[in-house]
Amino acid sequence: MLPRTYDNQVCSVARALEAIGDRWTMLVIRDAFHGVSRFDDFQQRLGIARNVLTDRLNRLTDEGILAKHAYQERPERFEYRLTEKGLDLFPVLMSLMKWGDRHAPYADGPPLVVVHRDCGGEIDARLRCERCGESITAVNAEALQPAPSAG
Amino acid sequence: MLPRTYDNQVCSVARALEAIGDRWTMLVIRDAFHGVSRFDDFQQRLGIARNVLTDRLNRLTDEGILAKHAYQERPERFEYRLTEKGLDLFPVLMSLMKWGDRHAPYADGPPLVVVHRDCGGEIDARLRCERCGESITAVNAEALQPAPSAG
Repeated sequence: MLPRTYDNQVCSVARALEAIGDRWTMLVIRDAFHGVSRFDDFQQRLGIARNVLTDRLNRLTDEGILAKHAYQERPERFEYRLTEKGLDLFPVLMSLMKWGDRHAPYADGPPLVVVHRDCGGEIDARLRCERCGESITAVNAEALQPAPSAG
Repeated sequence: MLPRTYDNQVCSVARALEAIGDRWTMLVIRDAFHGVSRFDDFQQRLGIARNVLTDRLNRLTDEGILAKHAYQERPERFEYRLTEKGLDLFPVLMSLMKWGDRHAPYADGPPLVVVHRDCGGEIDARLRCERCGESITAVNAEALQPAPSAG
């Protein structure tokens, strides 16, 4: 489907992966979508080495995907929040989740279901609400945990 | 938007990244969507070390994202083609491309434009045709290179 002559060094996929193409980086972004914002919370949830986490948070801040906000003065402490550029990664994250749900499934079914907040319909692979057809974004999405062993 | 209490070790995003969460891996997949199938072609296009490429192709084959087909007997040579599981990565790849187009843009505009083969409309961030609204998949998509410096 893509032309073979295409110069693959000039490529928006490659550019995107330069910013986020690292497994820890995507998991940090995932947790930021869960509302995690503080170093210790990321560290505890991810079980990641502190120096690796510092590196990933700094890179994401340099890339403008996360923004640093001081929430305490002495000692100075920061929160990391998704910028607009970061929030725009919602389709990337959702398409990864949907692919994982389908092709690397858990026996009990998807561990997390993302639904349209307004009507409760599930998000489909195209990020539309299965019930009402509306586009689902980071703003009108809600994640629910299905009852265990429902599947 | 996501519940803080969610056990993030049980996660389809994490599972997906176990299979594809490596920059080279995604670039191999990208080139497979371009129709590249032979070791030497991947190697030449990506400028990747041969041992690294061997590792990534083996992993993608083990994951069932690529399938190996013999195309020559003496010496035996193989092609690597996307399976259905691999083709289902189309939304992941397109959402990465769209994000790169928007947030890591090139001065001359997007290096590649994916259009709906049937009507020529561009793909939008939700993988729909901007012109006719139809869902675009790996099957009905076509990638075009815009004229240089059009932007």
